[in-house]
Amino acid sequence: MNIKVGILGATGNVGQRFIQMLENHPIFDLEVLAASHRSAGKKYAEACYWYQSEPIPEELANKIVVPTDANHKAFEDVDIVFSALPSDLAKKLEPEFAKAGKLVFSNASAMRMEKDVPLVIPEVNPEHFEMIDVQRENRNWDGAIITNPNCSTIGAVITLKPIMDEFGIDLVNITTMQAISGAGYNGVPSMAILDNVIPYIGNEEEKMQTESLKLLGKFENNNFVNGDFKIGVSCNRVPVIDGHTESIFVKTREEAEPEEIKNVMDKFDPLKEYNLPTYAKPIVIRDELDRPQPRLDRNTGKGMSISVGRIRKDPIFTVKYTALEHNTIRGAAGASVLNAEFYVKKYL
Amino acid sequence: MNIKVGILGATGNVGQRFIQMLENHPIFDLEVLAASHRSAGKKYAEACYWYQSEPIPEELANKIVVPTDANHKAFEDVDIVFSALPSDLAKKLEPEFAKAGKLVFSNASAMRMEKDVPLVIPEVNPEHFEMIDVQRENRNWDGAIITNPNCSTIGAVITLKPIMDEFGIDLVNITTMQAISGAGYNGVPSMAILDNVIPYIGNEEEKMQTESLKLLGKFENNNFVNGDFKIGVSCNRVPVIDGHTESIFVKTREEAEPEEIKNVMDKFDPLKEYNLPTYAKPIVIRDELDRPQPRLDRNTGKGMSISVGRIRKDPIFTVKYTALEHNTIRGAAGASVLNAEFYVKKYL
Amino acid sequence: MNIKVGILGATGNVGQRFIQMLENHPIFDLEVLAASHRSAGKKYAEACYWYQSEPIPEELANKIVVPTDANHKAFEDVDIVFSALPSDLAKKLEPEFAKAGKLVFSNASAMRMEKDVPLVIPEVNPEHFEMIDVQRENRNWDGAIITNPNCSTIGAVITLKPIMDEFGIDLVNITTMQAISGAGYNGVPSMAILDNVIPYIGNEEEKMQTESLKLLGKFENNNFVNGDFKIGVSCNRVPVIDGHTESIFVKTREEAEPEEIKNVMDKFDPLKEYNLPTYAKPIVIRDELDRPQPRLDRNTGKGMSISVGRIRKDPIFTVKYTALEHNTIRGAAGASVLNAEFYVKKYL
Amino acid sequence: MNIKVGILGATGNVGQRFIQMLENHPIFDLEVLAASHRSAGKKYAEACYWYQSEPIPEELANKIVVPTDANHKAFEDVDIVFSALPSDLAKKLEPEFAKAGKLVFSNASAMRMEKDVPLVIPEVNPEHFEMIDVQRENRNWDGAIITNPNCSTIGAVITLKPIMDEFGIDLVNITTMQAISGAGYNGVPSMAILDNVIPYIGNEEEKMQTESLKLLGKFENNNFVNGDFKIGVSCNRVPVIDGHTESIFVKTREEAEPEEIKNVMDKFDPLKEYNLPTYAKPIVIRDELDRPQPRLDRNTGKGMSISVGRIRKDPIFTVKYTALEHNTIRGAAGASVLNAEFYVKKYL
Repeated sequence: MNIKVGILGATGNVGQRFIQMLENHPIFDLEVLAASHRSAGKKYAEACYWYQSEPIPEELANKIVVPTDANHKAFEDVDIVFSALPSDLAKKLEPEFAKAGKLVFSNASAMRMEKDVPLVIPEVNPEHFEMIDVQRENRNWDGAIITNPNCSTIGAVITLKPIMDEFGIDLVNITTMQAISGAGYNGVPSMAILDNVIPYIGNEEEKMQTESLKLLGKFENNNFVNGDFKIGVSCNRVPVIDGHTESIFVKTREEAEPEEIKNVMDKFDPLKEYNLPTYAKPIVIRDELDRPQPRLDRNTGKGMSISVGRIRKDPIFTVKYTALEHNTIRGAAGASVLNAEFYVKKYL
Repeated sequence: MNIKVGILGATGNVGQRFIQMLENHPIFDLEVLAASHRSAGKKYAEACYWYQSEPIPEELANKIVVPTDANHKAFEDVDIVFSALPSDLAKKLEPEFAKAGKLVFSNASAMRMEKDVPLVIPEVNPEHFEMIDVQRENRNWDGAIITNPNCSTIGAVITLKPIMDEFGIDLVNITTMQAISGAGYNGVPSMAILDNVIPYIGNEEEKMQTESLKLLGKFENNNFVNGDFKIGVSCNRVPVIDGHTESIFVKTREEAEPEEIKNVMDKFDPLKEYNLPTYAKPIVIRDELDRPQPRLDRNTGKGMSISVGRIRKDPIFTVKYTALEHNTIRGAAGASVLNAEFYVKKYL
Repeated sequence: MNIKVGILGATGNVGQRFIQMLENHPIFDLEVLAASHRSAGKKYAEACYWYQSEPIPEELANKIVVPTDANHKAFEDVDIVFSALPSDLAKKLEPEFAKAGKLVFSNASAMRMEKDVPLVIPEVNPEHFEMIDVQRENRNWDGAIITNPNCSTIGAVITLKPIMDEFGIDLVNITTMQAISGAGYNGVPSMAILDNVIPYIGNEEEKMQTESLKLLGKFENNNFVNGDFKIGVSCNRVPVIDGHTESIFVKTREEAEPEEIKNVMDKFDPLKEYNLPTYAKPIVIRDELDRPQPRLDRNTGKGMSISVGRIRKDPIFTVKYTALEHNTIRGAAGASVLNAEFYVKKYL
Repeated sequence: MNIKVGILGATGNVGQRFIQMLENHPIFDLEVLAASHRSAGKKYAEACYWYQSEPIPEELANKIVVPTDANHKAFEDVDIVFSALPSDLAKKLEPEFAKAGKLVFSNASAMRMEKDVPLVIPEVNPEHFEMIDVQRENRNWDGAIITNPNCSTIGAVITLKPIMDEFGIDLVNITTMQAISGAGYNGVPSMAILDNVIPYIGNEEEKMQTESLKLLGKFENNNFVNGDFKIGVSCNRVPVIDGHTESIFVKTREEAEPEEIKNVMDKFDPLKEYNLPTYAKPIVIRDELDRPQPRLDRNTGKGMSISVGRIRKDPIFTVKYTALEHNTIRGAAGASVLNAEFYVKKYL
């Protein structure tokens, strides 16, 4: 029997991706589309400016949008809500849904670094889900909030995990070239980015640095313990629609040849046996000299795989490589959906 | 009395930039435009597809292009030739011009790493010009070949020089986001780069790594001695017309605060007193959060200044910052012209 | 029982689209991939630079490419070949395949305007297929050559057909904004088109003007008779990857309101009952103020539908509107495949 | 003695262009920069986000912005104000400045079609300035409002004027491909236009159609009389930063060959003898097959010349050609400044 789910912030960029991923989902039935009061009461197709390259799913086009109110009767039978809320609203509203007994799988950054909120990539730190019990006790909630990382963090961390497991990691240096869709539909004016690079994304470097340490850390005695390595990041916006490209440099604890790094990445497939609907091989290795590229490779694994190429030696670090992820699928909506699928399969 | 000069490879991308920089030059008179046999004999305006945003200088449009032949009589009174030849042709033809008594200021990579060929940025390593005497003796030339670095090297090295002088440098890590003009007019198909990033530029990482060590090294006992630091680079192509953006991370020998790094960069102005026509303040500091940006800042100092911004701490390195240079002016034609101006002023 | 088919020019832009459309095709079995001698003998994945956003079909990646030789034994059992050959090669090689008994469905322009060669859009002028008998007799071929129009012609003509049938057409004026993929992978340098428009495409205006008259003409007494209207065209290249956008102005014979024009377009669905695998509703009407747009609408009907919007009055013409087509699907590979499907269903 | 001038709406896109054009102006002294209350009181460099590719003029960077208040003492000695106000504000505020005795040269659309407001291109309809007397009497103003056309109108109308004068004009059909800067800095999100065309610009077609008739009409008995021809337009936005490209089709009254059309355009130079500082030859003919192009030709005549190319026959119209204008220079700030220069020279 399927689980009824809803989307908070259904009309925005990530909300639209949630809709695409939950349409015809084998275990989730998408029942509720919630958005701001401005949109509530309208048909979904009229409330949002749909700008995906696939048309709006017909059965949802006429669905009436409800307000983002945890006590609205539309949510009565809903067990899981996916949140694409902006950070300030998420901070206020997600706890209300958790209090109302919902499992909130959130893409918002608001709660990610809270001490009792799991920040999870299921291939990387599934044990962090255990924190839910603590969270419920702390906050006296029936539901819970589970978060996934920032779009630019997730691609890097998935590639670092198998390296850390096999060789240990001392230092990580990353320079990102991030797609415009990461800033939302109105986030980057065309006058700002055509024929241009913007070498700054607000709070992005801080998020990548703190989130990576939490994700690659441990869960011990009901506490998160940060990973024991250093990470420095420089973030840039480039004129690409979807797909964050990252130049990653890693110094491992133990010696490792590029070929060995490539092998541990290629074999990394920890959730295979769960048969989760949204799961794809987490890392796909590209052997061509000039790949991965965002326009050609962002849809690998239906947007859920990280493409990795150019694994090679570096004079300072052990290895350097290029990683690419679809920032609004694997880096946002897909991350939340995969978290929910894993949680349902393992814990419900 | 002015010096008569010529351009080798006058019809290509860098050749056109040479023309713009030598038009109305106060000490160089542009007398000869040389190109391939296919172009020779035609008027310049017919031999080349001019695609600069300023129109072709009228007095050059009708000039007849000559073949790239050191013994052609058009070169008789010419003392200096600027070379925008492709690497393979440069290797063959530049020595012939040097043998014929010309000073060859070359943007080609062919001879840069030769043991007796100066690779010079005049603000950085002017003493390398001394190698010319050795070169002439070695090769029995009346003229000489003087090279400037690869476009992506020069922006980084100029910013590293004042840091090295003041604090010493141990480690340098760079990720580049390079403009399409660096590959020449036909170098990057639009199908390859629209809505895309290409994480590979042939030989570029190697050039940046080896050239930086030579440029920031010493000239001792008639030998070049590499700089004593490590440098690792990752190069990417982005959909930008002109202007290479670089995320640079530096570990200094002595402790240094970002504010101190900024100050030494800002004060760096070693050639000021020479009053060279093409000279501009080598480093211009931008204090905005989100600068430099290629479209807005590439023309700083008429394309001759490196714009630097976002100087900040890094968890691994001492400091990180973003540098931007106009790759076909400061990174190519302008570099050669400045070398020639400095040489003429100091040595002739 | 399925029909065995091959592709000529399988490694290029349109060739790759043919592969995507023939993979898992219900009535065509893709048996032969042919390309130049340089590619022949190699595995397909090695012979071509695959740059579609979906990965290369696995079962074809290892297929050995054969030379484009009508007598090669690989073609023995093949009944149909799809041609993505460049025009000059098509002129020479396609007749050899027709002579060898193959039905050649060609996207090349070489033979389109020949007096005995059908130029067909099956929704528009299916009766032109009757010319095959004449062609065979004229040329003493067992096979035949059937062509489809130029990519920018097809979108316009499909929208004109229902208007002509209902109201008659006197004048047609079109300005195109065409995607870079129409010129092939190396056709448009990025230096030529970033931040730019190129108001010229070689021979494109002539093709659109002559092909439209043939397509919207008649087949009478074994001759093609041109349509009785005037058409003028201006063609431009814009920085769009796929999808030609066209501003179309039409003067009808009889009076017609925009709403009526919209209705006849919307109802136009002449091949519905054939249930052809590649068929989609030929015209999809968009009611939004600002559609169709290439990035959002090019995949409508899996790239086979023409999207039409902004149908409105004009001070000079009866009506003006914007039409959009996927130029490498409906405008190239998909056009040939649909022709073949229709022919097989109706005539074999 | 120079005339003191001010700018209304000095911080926006067109305001910045006004500043560039009035810096070091030989007859206008830029004394006042006015903007919204949010900006008033700040230094100009802090009040605006300067995003031109040339740096902000130093002497203006520290100038204190004043509110857009006609009675503010900063305007006391100012005779001319240039208005880059948004249309709704222009409607309210420009009359207050005219009432206060200022000559308002406005780029806003608000007053363009008023019966007593001149809409002028000085090369085209300078006699419309005579309406100022009527306006003053009607409205009891000491000053006056003089407008220039919409950015996409001006390029077309300048090319039509010499054709009309020589051959007469019956029909004009235009399809535009307009730059993003026309919509202001935040006007077009990058998600909307990268790899895309938007076939709609609000009110643009109506403006082009009505303004062209007024501009190419007469001034008779103190009334504007519309030109006697029909014009139909289709407007599109393309991913170009500056420069509107237009495919124009013209049916003349008398027969005319493309070569003749070219000649009358080329000779069109009606204001030459005035020696206006901002004036450039109004039409520059390009003979290349594929020009004009916005990135290469928008700066022709420092952005004040219309580039015209591809003048050729059309099956329906007499002639078709491509015109290009710099939309924020000739199509906005430069148009107002030229109007003011002409007015000062002729009438003051």
